[in-house]
Amino acid sequence: MTIAFNSSGQGSQHYVRIAKLVIDSSRLSDYKNALAEHAETAVRVEKGVLMLYAVYEKEHPTHVTVFEIYANEEAYKAHIQTPHFLKYKATVKDMVKSLELVDVVPIALESKNKLPG
Amino acid sequence: MTIAFNSSGQGSQHYVRIAKLVIDSSRLSDYKNALAEHAETAVRVEKGVLMLYAVYEKEHPTHVTVFEIYANEEAYKAHIQTPHFLKYKATVKDMVKSLELVDVVPIALESKNKLPG
Repeated sequence: MTIAFNSSGQGSQHYVRIAKLVIDSSRLSDYKNALAEHAETAVRVEKGVLMLYAVYEKEHPTHVTVFEIYANEEAYKAHIQTPHFLKYKATVKDMVKSLELVDVVPIALESKNKLPG
Repeated sequence: MTIAFNSSGQGSQHYVRIAKLVIDSSRLSDYKNALAEHAETAVRVEKGVLMLYAVYEKEHPTHVTVFEIYANEEAYKAHIQTPHFLKYKATVKDMVKSLELVDVVPIALESKNKLPG
């Protein structure tokens, strides 16, 4: 991501995180729908939510990873107060067996398309 | 990612993967430089390498995660034959303590910028 990061991945105030979830297998389809709807809404509505990429493991479909990039930590704090986030959290409360949030630092964010700096 | 995925994240032939690495702490700086250079080259030079996002954990800096999106599996197979990939692999051979490759399926790929469909 040429605009916001130099070659060592430093220099941006972007707030980057990986969320690792394990979902109740009996609720997996409902969970994926809720997450897809939430991610679409958040990136569309919130200026500071730059990217939400959510995937599940082919060999362990209940294991979900979300790669999250916010413009800065304030944007993340605003995000978790939004009606759509609170609705998502309430919807999936009984579907999520575990949630681990891992703060990360970029080494390289290279894409055919660049995020806003 | 509206172009390539429907609401359930299916319908794309994109090949998506997460690589989890543990790096020798004494070689971490060299490793990050090699990975950053490799990612920049691959995304710039190869049409089928759509995204390489590499991060390390704040609390465990030797733990590196790479989120990889290729146009399709053929693009990935071509990628690992390129001179820059082979150079990267040779450079980091003694820096990488472990490498786990996890095939994943998108649930949502939402970004302020869209990847090519």
